[in-house]
Amino acid sequence: MAIITLLTDFGLANAYVGIMRGVILGINPAATIVDLTHEVPPQDIGYAAFELGTAWRYFPPGTIHVVVVDPGVGGERAAIAARVGEQCFVAPDNGVLSYVLAEGPAEVVRLTERRYWLPHTSHTFHGRDIFAPVAAHLSLGVALAALGQPHERPVTFPLPRPVRRPDGTWLAHVIHVDRFGNLVTSLPASWQPREGIAGALVAGVRVDAVVRAYAEAPEGAPAILEGSAGYLEIAVRNGSARERLGVAVGAEVVFLTCR
Amino acid sequence: MAIITLLTDFGLANAYVGIMRGVILGINPAATIVDLTHEVPPQDIGYAAFELGTAWRYFPPGTIHVVVVDPGVGGERAAIAARVGEQCFVAPDNGVLSYVLAEGPAEVVRLTERRYWLPHTSHTFHGRDIFAPVAAHLSLGVALAALGQPHERPVTFPLPRPVRRPDGTWLAHVIHVDRFGNLVTSLPASWQPREGIAGALVAGVRVDAVVRAYAEAPEGAPAILEGSAGYLEIAVRNGSARERLGVAVGAEVVFLTCR
Amino acid sequence: MAIITLLTDFGLANAYVGIMRGVILGINPAATIVDLTHEVPPQDIGYAAFELGTAWRYFPPGTIHVVVVDPGVGGERAAIAARVGEQCFVAPDNGVLSYVLAEGPAEVVRLTERRYWLPHTSHTFHGRDIFAPVAAHLSLGVALAALGQPHERPVTFPLPRPVRRPDGTWLAHVIHVDRFGNLVTSLPASWQPREGIAGALVAGVRVDAVVRAYAEAPEGAPAILEGSAGYLEIAVRNGSARERLGVAVGAEVVFLTCR
Repeated sequence: MAIITLLTDFGLANAYVGIMRGVILGINPAATIVDLTHEVPPQDIGYAAFELGTAWRYFPPGTIHVVVVDPGVGGERAAIAARVGEQCFVAPDNGVLSYVLAEGPAEVVRLTERRYWLPHTSHTFHGRDIFAPVAAHLSLGVALAALGQPHERPVTFPLPRPVRRPDGTWLAHVIHVDRFGNLVTSLPASWQPREGIAGALVAGVRVDAVVRAYAEAPEGAPAILEGSAGYLEIAVRNGSARERLGVAVGAEVVFLTCR
Repeated sequence: MAIITLLTDFGLANAYVGIMRGVILGINPAATIVDLTHEVPPQDIGYAAFELGTAWRYFPPGTIHVVVVDPGVGGERAAIAARVGEQCFVAPDNGVLSYVLAEGPAEVVRLTERRYWLPHTSHTFHGRDIFAPVAAHLSLGVALAALGQPHERPVTFPLPRPVRRPDGTWLAHVIHVDRFGNLVTSLPASWQPREGIAGALVAGVRVDAVVRAYAEAPEGAPAILEGSAGYLEIAVRNGSARERLGVAVGAEVVFLTCR
Repeated sequence: MAIITLLTDFGLANAYVGIMRGVILGINPAATIVDLTHEVPPQDIGYAAFELGTAWRYFPPGTIHVVVVDPGVGGERAAIAARVGEQCFVAPDNGVLSYVLAEGPAEVVRLTERRYWLPHTSHTFHGRDIFAPVAAHLSLGVALAALGQPHERPVTFPLPRPVRRPDGTWLAHVIHVDRFGNLVTSLPASWQPREGIAGALVAGVRVDAVVRAYAEAPEGAPAILEGSAGYLEIAVRNGSARERLGVAVGAEVVFLTCR
């Protein structure tokens, strides 16, 4: 049994993802295929990188993650496969693995061995023609090193990190907004536990409530809590902090600390 | 082989559902996981309860259904597992099992045995930390009773039921609207077969057509028929009854009967 | 192992697709079920036919494809199963198999053998009651011919084909718009290779760029390239040709050729 996950910006209104599954199952009929999400906003590499970063550690050793957010398909960008810990990743070399590659040493190869691709490869759909078949072959036991040549410096973007200021406050940013409108900030709870937070300033609004769970937050007012991905977040109970505060990814959040 | 279904309000734009699958497969690599829906409107317990109520009887004995619509996560609400007939259910104790628990006697436990949870449990994502691993352990043969203590009175809401009035008409309500804009009413066809219906009044509109199938309905006009979940519904052929009549869940529907 | 794909207009906000999976797994617990898409616009047979046409050839021999876009459910339309090459198809007889049936000779039967259906069949959800169980039985080895009587002339619509005009230009049409807003035209690249294209006229706009890959297109301007389904398409790099040009399915596209 091998698990292969798929993370793309293909949406679900076309058969693109189903086609990738067909290609994988044609090579490894025993693969277990899991969707992470296909609703990455088109070409949004940062969004995809974050989602992968929250998800991969919950999969068992041997899992292979395929990421296809690929505005450079058919151009000069490399296609790569990487091993980090006991899991593998197959993706365009454009930064989608940034969170994963920050976790530790990686073995990375550039995909060049065409024998592991579909016989005909298009210039527009490498998810189908290269990434899916490569993942399927990996799941059958093909060695990472057999897929191509070592690739020294995969593309990564600097992870958004908060800055501690002389007055003890943290200058952080919104790095993700989820389905519920929760604002995930760049401040890891492991850097600044909730207990030491005195409040936050977002979009000119002072947030005072610091809670453990959504259910403890005052109804309708924004509150600070530790989100499920390990970052401090701003949420509105049974509502949307995004709508309530009118902010988006990139907005500044200042966390005040107990002195 | 064991089937585990997932029903949440997580949407598909984030990796939340994929993460739950990763957790399940890490515990039981042979589990077959099926999505019921993840597009429950955020925190809409009634919607989730209805969808589960229409779906569970079509699954084979031994299936385990996981429902995570959980506005009270991290608060005082219990987490429970239940057996009804030959199927099991894992969910917060907030009414999402109302339709299922109305079907017959249930064995219910409150989830307290932490050995069946992830080692670290957050206050914000029990789907990942508690419900998914508990379902996976159930699928491996762990006994329901091993998961926690008996739970006497699970939370349920009264099922919406129509009232027969002295003049023979039924006072019913719209209890669900599906993707096609079909208005599902609270009147079960087993209480009032289609053959005895003379028409309906919805939002000031008199519906006269009573048909067996969408294809028999007059184009563009609303019609009454027996929907696939066993309730009488109002539909517009190749159109949307919701848009045509401008009504939503909760709207009153009066069914006229043949005297 | 048998693969069964599902292609419907049910959307993902209701449990309809999950119910079909439950029915299939109740009959064949070992089936591997793959979603092609469920976001076909309601009752859009042409859209479904196109998606199936792009996808089926990427699945291994023995795959069974179930298509449920079925405005005539419960009426006079036949339900059919077909074999084309080494794959099978189960669908209403309304044209959804048009692209597939154009590929070669098919064995087609009308589904009449009720022993392969659910015991109770509704007039509104044959996906659950007929198509899913028939596909599951096929996947267990039931012969196509056992499902019903030979069906001589399945319904098909004429495939949209471009016309070559005396001046060497092609009169084509937009036949599909994908998630990225790419305009798929009716001109197969095998009829007119990209190298012979000098430009195109769409919605009064002259498109000059002819490229191999999205990444080679000028930013913001529409370009012509060979899409992944084998048709020439009009795309805007990191943007939407649909929005940029304001056109939809059916719009005329004139391709100019090198003389």
